[in-house]
Amino acid sequence: MRKKIEQLFPKMVQWRRYFHQYPELSYQEKNTSTYIATFLKELNLEVHTGIGGYGVTGLLRGKEAGPVVALRADIDALPIQDEKKCEYRSQVPGIMHACGHDGHMATLMGAATILAEEVDRLKGQVLFIFQPAEEKPPGGAIQMIREGVLESVDVIYGMHLWTPFPLGMIGTRPDEIMSASDEFNITIRGRGGHGGIPHTAIDTVVIASHLVVNLQTIVSRQIDPLQAGVITVGMIKGGSTFNVIADTCTLTGTVRTFKPEIRKMLVERIEEVVKNTCQMYGADYQFEYVYGYPSVINHGDEAKRVMKVAKMIVNEQQVQTISPLMPGEDFAYYLQERPGAFYFVGAGNAEKQITYPHHHPLFDIDERAMKIGAELFVNLVWDYIDQYAGSRRDERNKLGNL
Amino acid sequence: MRKKIEQLFPKMVQWRRYFHQYPELSYQEKNTSTYIATFLKELNLEVHTGIGGYGVTGLLRGKEAGPVVALRADIDALPIQDEKKCEYRSQVPGIMHACGHDGHMATLMGAATILAEEVDRLKGQVLFIFQPAEEKPPGGAIQMIREGVLESVDVIYGMHLWTPFPLGMIGTRPDEIMSASDEFNITIRGRGGHGGIPHTAIDTVVIASHLVVNLQTIVSRQIDPLQAGVITVGMIKGGSTFNVIADTCTLTGTVRTFKPEIRKMLVERIEEVVKNTCQMYGADYQFEYVYGYPSVINHGDEAKRVMKVAKMIVNEQQVQTISPLMPGEDFAYYLQERPGAFYFVGAGNAEKQITYPHHHPLFDIDERAMKIGAELFVNLVWDYIDQYAGSRRDERNKLGNL
Amino acid sequence: MRKKIEQLFPKMVQWRRYFHQYPELSYQEKNTSTYIATFLKELNLEVHTGIGGYGVTGLLRGKEAGPVVALRADIDALPIQDEKKCEYRSQVPGIMHACGHDGHMATLMGAATILAEEVDRLKGQVLFIFQPAEEKPPGGAIQMIREGVLESVDVIYGMHLWTPFPLGMIGTRPDEIMSASDEFNITIRGRGGHGGIPHTAIDTVVIASHLVVNLQTIVSRQIDPLQAGVITVGMIKGGSTFNVIADTCTLTGTVRTFKPEIRKMLVERIEEVVKNTCQMYGADYQFEYVYGYPSVINHGDEAKRVMKVAKMIVNEQQVQTISPLMPGEDFAYYLQERPGAFYFVGAGNAEKQITYPHHHPLFDIDERAMKIGAELFVNLVWDYIDQYAGSRRDERNKLGNL
Amino acid sequence: MRKKIEQLFPKMVQWRRYFHQYPELSYQEKNTSTYIATFLKELNLEVHTGIGGYGVTGLLRGKEAGPVVALRADIDALPIQDEKKCEYRSQVPGIMHACGHDGHMATLMGAATILAEEVDRLKGQVLFIFQPAEEKPPGGAIQMIREGVLESVDVIYGMHLWTPFPLGMIGTRPDEIMSASDEFNITIRGRGGHGGIPHTAIDTVVIASHLVVNLQTIVSRQIDPLQAGVITVGMIKGGSTFNVIADTCTLTGTVRTFKPEIRKMLVERIEEVVKNTCQMYGADYQFEYVYGYPSVINHGDEAKRVMKVAKMIVNEQQVQTISPLMPGEDFAYYLQERPGAFYFVGAGNAEKQITYPHHHPLFDIDERAMKIGAELFVNLVWDYIDQYAGSRRDERNKLGNL
Repeated sequence: MRKKIEQLFPKMVQWRRYFHQYPELSYQEKNTSTYIATFLKELNLEVHTGIGGYGVTGLLRGKEAGPVVALRADIDALPIQDEKKCEYRSQVPGIMHACGHDGHMATLMGAATILAEEVDRLKGQVLFIFQPAEEKPPGGAIQMIREGVLESVDVIYGMHLWTPFPLGMIGTRPDEIMSASDEFNITIRGRGGHGGIPHTAIDTVVIASHLVVNLQTIVSRQIDPLQAGVITVGMIKGGSTFNVIADTCTLTGTVRTFKPEIRKMLVERIEEVVKNTCQMYGADYQFEYVYGYPSVINHGDEAKRVMKVAKMIVNEQQVQTISPLMPGEDFAYYLQERPGAFYFVGAGNAEKQITYPHHHPLFDIDERAMKIGAELFVNLVWDYIDQYAGSRRDERNKLGNL
Repeated sequence: MRKKIEQLFPKMVQWRRYFHQYPELSYQEKNTSTYIATFLKELNLEVHTGIGGYGVTGLLRGKEAGPVVALRADIDALPIQDEKKCEYRSQVPGIMHACGHDGHMATLMGAATILAEEVDRLKGQVLFIFQPAEEKPPGGAIQMIREGVLESVDVIYGMHLWTPFPLGMIGTRPDEIMSASDEFNITIRGRGGHGGIPHTAIDTVVIASHLVVNLQTIVSRQIDPLQAGVITVGMIKGGSTFNVIADTCTLTGTVRTFKPEIRKMLVERIEEVVKNTCQMYGADYQFEYVYGYPSVINHGDEAKRVMKVAKMIVNEQQVQTISPLMPGEDFAYYLQERPGAFYFVGAGNAEKQITYPHHHPLFDIDERAMKIGAELFVNLVWDYIDQYAGSRRDERNKLGNL
Repeated sequence: MRKKIEQLFPKMVQWRRYFHQYPELSYQEKNTSTYIATFLKELNLEVHTGIGGYGVTGLLRGKEAGPVVALRADIDALPIQDEKKCEYRSQVPGIMHACGHDGHMATLMGAATILAEEVDRLKGQVLFIFQPAEEKPPGGAIQMIREGVLESVDVIYGMHLWTPFPLGMIGTRPDEIMSASDEFNITIRGRGGHGGIPHTAIDTVVIASHLVVNLQTIVSRQIDPLQAGVITVGMIKGGSTFNVIADTCTLTGTVRTFKPEIRKMLVERIEEVVKNTCQMYGADYQFEYVYGYPSVINHGDEAKRVMKVAKMIVNEQQVQTISPLMPGEDFAYYLQERPGAFYFVGAGNAEKQITYPHHHPLFDIDERAMKIGAELFVNLVWDYIDQYAGSRRDERNKLGNL
Repeated sequence: MRKKIEQLFPKMVQWRRYFHQYPELSYQEKNTSTYIATFLKELNLEVHTGIGGYGVTGLLRGKEAGPVVALRADIDALPIQDEKKCEYRSQVPGIMHACGHDGHMATLMGAATILAEEVDRLKGQVLFIFQPAEEKPPGGAIQMIREGVLESVDVIYGMHLWTPFPLGMIGTRPDEIMSASDEFNITIRGRGGHGGIPHTAIDTVVIASHLVVNLQTIVSRQIDPLQAGVITVGMIKGGSTFNVIADTCTLTGTVRTFKPEIRKMLVERIEEVVKNTCQMYGADYQFEYVYGYPSVINHGDEAKRVMKVAKMIVNEQQVQTISPLMPGEDFAYYLQERPGAFYFVGAGNAEKQITYPHHHPLFDIDERAMKIGAELFVNLVWDYIDQYAGSRRDERNKLGNL
């Protein structure tokens, strides 16, 4: 199979670079979606479009009934100006595939090509999910699920090409692998006034500062030290000049957690701290908490399968149990519904200076990572189907890890 | 004399409204200056222009030698859009006499007119000072002094038309009457980072918040409770989005004090708190302290003279010993060099809805305050000269209150 | 009169040293009281005892009706061990006249002696008030007033011998001269726990620390910078060992103010801050606010009289308008009911090393201050009676400053 | 073997209850030590006493050379008053086996009895280590190691009877299982003063409060959220009365960590925060950091062995991979030198109300836990020796996990 992939690689590069030049923002992936649908139809898959926005699926039916394995790629780009000099750089001002979703698509298209060629020996089905709007909550995954994309699915796998890991490395872990990522917005309303006459005003800069300091104590004292939880105030803004007391100060930030009970506790505690800090000094407040994606929680058996299969593709030492990562991913929603696993495929290359972090204006990937990604997708399908072929779905679920 | 002032009043209104329609910003009072110089020349005064920028003086020499009394008006306007509907509203977009300096000029022009008529019985001299750039440090006063405006002067008086006081009220006090008003600018430089990975960043929003909280303790614990001192952070700004740790946070604020030793102490303490708060969490900082005007400190005898003379003009109950006020005034510099006093002439009128605070887009004055102001200027001159006429300047200084 | 005082001085010293050797605590001044009553009877005054505890008054009636002038001395001592070596040191272990009340009594006894000798020319009456329990709220003054001590009184004077001022100096001021001095006690109740498992506990050390920090902002932002107000947490105590989270933390402190409205505001604000700081982190609290003496507010005319009379006794430069002082005094209650003034008579002497502050175990006074104090008491009586003699009390009140 | 243990159980109870009645504090375990030594000699072991204080070892030599397995029990008691009512309660006022070390000794004595009976088939050696002073750093372990106790040892196991876990449960984990537990002591020295005159003082209560608040930010922002770290200020104490500003405030607390690099970082950060917080407000400080035991880090293979062997003794579901625990243990030092594992044997019983936490005055254990503990000790020996018998030590080390 590796030979097939090598032969296919130039095409994967071509696809990826096409996507890279014509990126589309979340919820606006119209052309990308059309491109993919056309491609999948050429492979003779059953194609559905317009699922959960610009979502596209292609179903590959094997000759025999059997398990349904879903493979997912996300397809949206970011509002970042591409600053690379290469010829395949983004042609769209201010928009860029700075997170590698272009590579995700090309990788999954590669896997689809190979699996389509071997449909005759496939005892089950493979559903290729091209999901829009991963970058921006509420995200495309939840909407595609609501529209039934997982209905017949038994297991689902997703990957991220990952430049912080070197080419050749594959990493995953059982349980929590990516954090829940929420947003909060706080507006403190006091009373403005002359900078020299504080007692007639309600100084929102001072109150906001107390608030930020108070939030630290939630993290330091109210979270189980063995659990992770982060509160970051990313932006603070109050007042407009040096000698007038600010009547309003706004703060916006993010909360990162893995355990749902810690997430719930933090929402409550933050509001409690906001409320009391403002009341203490006579200010009003607005508090908005925007739930982002929940944490991505891998199913133990499927994470093990990823590691087992990965070791057949790369060197055993290159397959690693990684620490959880803090960014969010709406792949989380699939894993709330079905068994499965998410994993990272190394796409960095220090020698070639491919080291920019995701979301950086100079972000790029070592495209060879797509070969590894495709091989892993394909082999996960075979491995899962080998294990469960012939078992009825109800039985599988009894055996399985739902 | 009151009759003369009544006769003159329509002209004073006309002058004031002219200035009101054609306001000029600090350091740019070219036309205003020309208008005044022309006027003073018509009164046959010795006129000097271009002192300390667009400063103008007119010297009225009495028939006999004697003391030199200076009277000062400030002439600059503010970068505020006039939102009044009346026909004399500002014709210059974004610029407005929102602090009453137009009235100060007209009042002093009225006083000059009357005193010029009585020059024959004047045993001394009167110097009319029209000073630019009061609103914006370093200000016009210090520059006019450097260019010698006070050289021959024995005493100086200045007034502010003041809408928070009702028409008819005159207020002053011995010692500190207006605060020193300084500005500080702080930039905290840390290290940005992913909102979910705080330990690799140096979070300047948190550090700035600690800083603001820490500054409160300077005020609460390190200033003599019997003395005044204010630290206000008027503006805070850090970060640009909710999920990225801010690498920079800036704060700007003002310090208000009356006693020079408290001012000095606060500068030192603030920098100490900035330095240690930043060091504590590994951030760098820039700290800039911009000295504004020092506090206006009235000379006791001259403040008493103002109150005595005021009681001859308005009802005794309307002459009040007021509390110090927090805005700054560069009249402070004159009083560091010569005896004198600064005072407030009520220009508010609740019945007529003339109640907007200074620097407000709807600010206006009850123009009749100018009559009181002019009468007070004139009578201060007579009272001072009556007391000191005939004494040589050196002797006067021995007697006097320098 | 000065000669009479000189002759009397050895006796005043003897009285003072007797009191110094046999001090009695607040509310327990039994022997002191008896000693004074015996003395006053020997002067043929009308003596009342047992007023407001161990309070004693002696009334000296002049030959003619006229104003009633009250002079007050306080008589209690402190729970401090006298560490002086001199022969008149305290004979009572752990109790000491460390605030000069012994001198106050001797001074007033001296004044009584002199005035009693001149009763024939007295057109009015003098009430000598020896008040217990000044050191310990609720204090003796309020109780003596409740029992009618001021009923016939027109004006009242009180003094403090004061070692921070040098012998010869006399200081007072109109309006506020000594602050209101209150006490607060806060108990924070959280939940103890293992030092390594913070999230199961409610950490009162952290909450108390936030509370102390938050209190600073009341002072820095909510008190008019032109007014005085102090919040001091004198004592904090929480937990008993390094590795257990403290379930309770107690704080106790004092509030100092001059203006009743600021006092009222601070009580409310402190409780608001306590409440919200505790709620924020889930703790309970008890908040107790113990009102001490209100601020001593001198009546303007009587403060002027003190200064005028003082200048007849000491050098003019030695009579000073002082800044308000932070300790409390229950003389405040008399001045809420009647015109009068409180003042300080310098009793320090750097050359003789009489420099220990009040309440210090080595505290002593330069006894010659008692001569000045007595002369001032006597002359205040004459000055007041000269002014008001012959006027009926009702009329006086109309004229006067009640 | 279970039958043998059942027969032995009454003796184990008897031993445990003897120790329970006659507890001895850390570093004072004289009689306990003698009792153990006598017992071990009766089993014909090679006994050494006085190792690292009152440490005792007994060596059981098998008939053939082979691996040396060490089993460890700790023997000291706590300064706690036993408040139980039972007849075996502590006879020593103020001292109590409130952590279960009495049971540890009896369990290990049981294991020694059984192994000694089977010495003929033992292909290796067993070293029974009875270690003093576990409760109080620097602790007995480090001293016994310095005196060579581990020299010939290949592997070491230790257990804790644990009432938070129910009888029957056995818990351990690879890697970190118990935290490093350190102590810090901070003294802040400022300048005392009158409660009403803050600006002449340096208020250590306010500074200490800022310090505690500042320490929270180390935890919230400077520790990797995926790692554990705790800073607890267990005790704060400053000032002695409500109206005097405290010249000194002391704080004492604990730091808990698992990773040495986080421990190191926290020491540095805490001192940095202490230093800058004090400097900021002009105070001096003393900072003392007392390193307690490092974290107990189980060797992966030996933790697995414990779980494997445990499943032969109790129900498989009762063998659990537990979360790390926050208390410290000087067993850590053995595992820095040799492979091995530490584990917890459930000793709680809700039905019998044996639920008091360790170090509680009513602490007790379900004594049947000792049977499980002894069986596990014995079987760990057999399992290890079965694996490694015949291999030379050097070879073992190559195979092994050092």
